[in-house]
Amino acid sequence: MILHNYWRSGTSYRTRIALNLKGLTYEQRAYDLRAGMQKDAAYKTLNPQMMVPTLETDDGALLTQSPAILEWLEERYPEPSLLPKNANERAIVRAMAALIGCDIHPLGNLRVLGQLRTQFGADGAAVKQWTARWIGDGFAALETLIERHGRRFAYGDVPTLIECYLVPQLYSAERFEVDVSPYPRLLAAANAARALPEVEAAHPDRQPDADPQ
Amino acid sequence: MILHNYWRSGTSYRTRIALNLKGLTYEQRAYDLRAGMQKDAAYKTLNPQMMVPTLETDDGALLTQSPAILEWLEERYPEPSLLPKNANERAIVRAMAALIGCDIHPLGNLRVLGQLRTQFGADGAAVKQWTARWIGDGFAALETLIERHGRRFAYGDVPTLIECYLVPQLYSAERFEVDVSPYPRLLAAANAARALPEVEAAHPDRQPDADPQ
Repeated sequence: MILHNYWRSGTSYRTRIALNLKGLTYEQRAYDLRAGMQKDAAYKTLNPQMMVPTLETDDGALLTQSPAILEWLEERYPEPSLLPKNANERAIVRAMAALIGCDIHPLGNLRVLGQLRTQFGADGAAVKQWTARWIGDGFAALETLIERHGRRFAYGDVPTLIECYLVPQLYSAERFEVDVSPYPRLLAAANAARALPEVEAAHPDRQPDADPQ
Repeated sequence: MILHNYWRSGTSYRTRIALNLKGLTYEQRAYDLRAGMQKDAAYKTLNPQMMVPTLETDDGALLTQSPAILEWLEERYPEPSLLPKNANERAIVRAMAALIGCDIHPLGNLRVLGQLRTQFGADGAAVKQWTARWIGDGFAALETLIERHGRRFAYGDVPTLIECYLVPQLYSAERFEVDVSPYPRLLAAANAARALPEVEAAHPDRQPDADPQ
């Protein structure tokens, strides 16, 4: 499999965590989003949305949108499972993942912050205030849900889809210097996940295209 | 089942379409988002995120986040199916749905447009420009994907999860007066879906709490 991605993209990070937790090996192709490489014509044929990641499977299928890729991985490589067995429990895990995937992450995307800068003249402080609002709202709700359903991890005692979403979102929160001290359970669950070698290996700084300034 | 929702919310509309396509009956409880009813303490215990919809199942489970609710409906009530049988095809359908659910819809949410107004003083024209940007980017990519995969509907000849997302997103685009003429295949697929009685019955204007001005 080939993962077309970018070291610092949250959805790329999310997908690497899932691939690693499943014990799968994959090649990487890097697209520097800061240089707009995802807009090249060759990549557009792979992914008409011109966003990362895209997972090219061994049979040549081009899978886009990380939530869909994660469900495909779960169907195609069921063990170790990232979802509980029971339908109601699966729905709770998927809801906690979607809370991040729909209601936090997209609002802090590079293209969205760029639009705030060009359309509204947002400066660094305004961008921080914007991202802190969505991370704060979402993390507050997640903290309650982790209190209800979490144990060692955000849902129960084994990593689930939630960790794939949570770890990159916390990485982003830390980059934007959001105060995460009001969410101790969320932090404990994320730290348990970050300590796993499979999750650690997915960290942006460990990728071949990493270029920390 | 009880669907806690709001007539004009896109994610509520999405969930009603899925319930109707599955032929399921449900009660509705309405929360007027303009009056902030979703922030009442009683609703917060149902849904810590204080957003609609929440689906209360017959066994008392509280399901939140429409992408998770739709997957639960598909697992619990498999026929008629809203996903193809083949894993790669399922991934494409889920990706087309997630393109709307993650990269278009959340950016036009009421709370996000409110933040643009309070933080950046956005007026009606600026809000329209903002929503048109995300709908335009997303619909352009969807048009290519529907050209590849669509027939009568956005993916093949039967309605899938995509229609649940597409019809409410087009309703929103029309409300914001976005020019959708560059996306004829998308429009044809959405119109085929809107003509189905199950989809028509989910329209905001037909809900008990509808209050068109």
